Amino acid sequence: MTEKDDILKLHELHTGVLDIASELPVDDRKDLAKAYTPGVAILSKLIASHPELKDRYTMSGKLVALVTDGSAVLGLGNIGPAGGLPVIEGKALLYKDLAGVNAVPISVNQVSVDETVRTIKNIAGSFAGIHLEDIAAPRCFEIEDQLARELDIPVYHDDQEGTAIVVLAGLINAAKVTGKPLKSLKVVVNGVGASGLATAKLLDHVGITNLTLVDKDGVITKNDGRYNRYQRDFAAKLGQDDSLKNRQLSDVIRGKDAFIGLSAANLMTADDVSRMAADPIIFALANPIPEIDPEIASNAGAVVIATGSSQYPNQVNNILVFPGLFKGLLSAGIKHVGYDLQAVVSNALAGMIANPTAEEIVPGVFDKGVVKTVTNALVSYAKKDHALVTD
Amino acid sequence: MTEKDDILKLHELHTGVLDIASELPVDDRKDLAKAYTPGVAILSKLIASHPELKDRYTMSGKLVALVTDGSAVLGLGNIGPAGGLPVIEGKALLYKDLAGVNAVPISVNQVSVDETVRTIKNIAGSFAGIHLEDIAAPRCFEIEDQLARELDIPVYHDDQEGTAIVVLAGLINAAKVTGKPLKSLKVVVNGVGASGLATAKLLDHVGITNLTLVDKDGVITKNDGRYNRYQRDFAAKLGQDDSLKNRQLSDVIRGKDAFIGLSAANLMTADDVSRMAADPIIFALANPIPEIDPEIASNAGAVVIATGSSQYPNQVNNILVFPGLFKGLLSAGIKHVGYDLQAVVSNALAGMIANPTAEEIVPGVFDKGVVKTVTNALVSYAKKDHALVTD
Repeated sequence: MTEKDDILKLHELHTGVLDIASELPVDDRKDLAKAYTPGVAILSKLIASHPELKDRYTMSGKLVALVTDGSAVLGLGNIGPAGGLPVIEGKALLYKDLAGVNAVPISVNQVSVDETVRTIKNIAGSFAGIHLEDIAAPRCFEIEDQLARELDIPVYHDDQEGTAIVVLAGLINAAKVTGKPLKSLKVVVNGVGASGLATAKLLDHVGITNLTLVDKDGVITKNDGRYNRYQRDFAAKLGQDDSLKNRQLSDVIRGKDAFIGLSAANLMTADDVSRMAADPIIFALANPIPEIDPEIASNAGAVVIATGSSQYPNQVNNILVFPGLFKGLLSAGIKHVGYDLQAVVSNALAGMIANPTAEEIVPGVFDKGVVKTVTNALVSYAKKDHALVTD
Repeated sequence: MTEKDDILKLHELHTGVLDIASELPVDDRKDLAKAYTPGVAILSKLIASHPELKDRYTMSGKLVALVTDGSAVLGLGNIGPAGGLPVIEGKALLYKDLAGVNAVPISVNQVSVDETVRTIKNIAGSFAGIHLEDIAAPRCFEIEDQLARELDIPVYHDDQEGTAIVVLAGLINAAKVTGKPLKSLKVVVNGVGASGLATAKLLDHVGITNLTLVDKDGVITKNDGRYNRYQRDFAAKLGQDDSLKNRQLSDVIRGKDAFIGLSAANLMTADDVSRMAADPIIFALANPIPEIDPEIASNAGAVVIATGSSQYPNQVNNILVFPGLFKGLLSAGIKHVGYDLQAVVSNALAGMIANPTAEEIVPGVFDKGVVKTVTNALVSYAKKDHALVTD
């Protein structure tokens, strides 16, 4: 049996990899009266008059909707909502297996931003949180912004906040390895889709001031109509004006300390690395094939090299974030995944490595401490946050 | 601890009565590669080019969406989508416990019919079927009609088809007990909301020609603006014209063989029963308090008496239908819950009672044979149906 056959059989055996489980056997009238009728009438009446109690007595208090429209699946592009299902089902499985979080995969047709938002809002009462996944930019920005504003449950886009958090975690330790202060790093973010923009914004938020955004047409500038308004607005904030238009990666990489690639295979060269400042940091996170082969990068002088893949050291992967993150959001009752919160999680993940080395800047994805560390960080964050509010 | 406290504690313990279960442990890189990445890329690519395969390899092939907007909860009325959650979660529990069917509760905001339909259509790709629950008439008719037309998965409204099926099952055996041919029965259906109308239509479909529809303002007539177009259209089909307007139950019950009540507590009197034909059949299915107390009905001469409650013999309850029905729809790949199918299930349920008596016209809700009987009936139905298509 080939590996492909093996995987198909595994996912066919139970029709997917998830199941609904009963927490209550119903074997006789007594069980039925408690689990269903007339017992549920007591709950229904109580919740009708106190809707906030639904999260205490029904699954809506713990169930995460893992939502995709399949418009931007990593490495595959727009493969439609059906094509996106295996990815979100896999993530729902990881939620359960790694963190005990209950998540259900929901694919949404590719309709307008407004209709997508309305669809998710209309069913949001069934859920404790919304995890958005594999939705193309700029749709994903508008959808997440609207939902976060209009819902009172946490809304999280793994491709944005998840990637931003794990990249910052890695960069904190990479800076230590090279002996440069984090905020002093001169950073190029290459590939400014959902994950690139969210990552750049988080790096900016923590005080990295020398940031350059580059996409396939070159540096993103504030008036360049080829870019969406989210990209242009942030380019404007960074002062990337018309004078930089069309300048390419190979040019702007000169003298930089770190390259954060969230773009595509093999678009960085050994020459690019050699033009960087001393002790270059290379995060070549395109999957499955990185922006530059780690061996080539190393030979060209890179000191810390990370990829998204398990084939090399330093796997900078969202699996380090989302299971513990949602466990923490739900345990701590946090409703909003802001930049401070993201930075707190990055710090906690980075802090797991007592003595970072070129070969170890982030914990392994099967390190049992990861989920606990992320969850605890959020619980402490929520306490401090509440303290601030009452100050 | 009071019974109420006991029920609250039970539903609070696990935050509801359901859970997501993993069918696949993820303990190391090898598991991860199969369950998630890069394994899911194989599935995603395959499904992107053959979308119909999603139901073989993902949960969408087995997961039923149990959808309510809480606008018409039995005995409680319009208690909103949050209030409706415990009921659908209870039903999802019964699906799992009684039939092994995977169902997830989805509450939907009370928005327009069009927006409700669009919302459900937009997420339908995640599911193998839609079970609608506790949605007020006439919204429920429009929503179900549109969804059934536009989706290629089964759409079922338990308050309509479920009730219709179990009532017909009971009536088949009640007719036997009274020695009257089913089709000769003169029947009053009292309370023509979702369940009453669906029941009347199924009785009409199987050949019961003497049918009278009554609601709280009296006989439903084809031009009476107090009724919705679904009620008026069916009244027209039955020939209920203006001459019958405002005639009340106490009047039209005269000489009838069977009373099917899907209305409200205590609105039938002993006098009403005494005006019926010999050997009256009374289905007083209002819950929790029936249209007439069974003892009063019995003293007034009723021969077969059924209620929706477990307190009396002959519990005519949808629990006899939905778990096995959806199990059967999914096993047999049936996409449409039409009248022939409903009648087939009614016959199968009625057939479980070899010798019906006044005290036993339907099986008990904990009879282990019920789910199997209903499922098998549908599997046979599908085979015959397919045979007809190829004729």
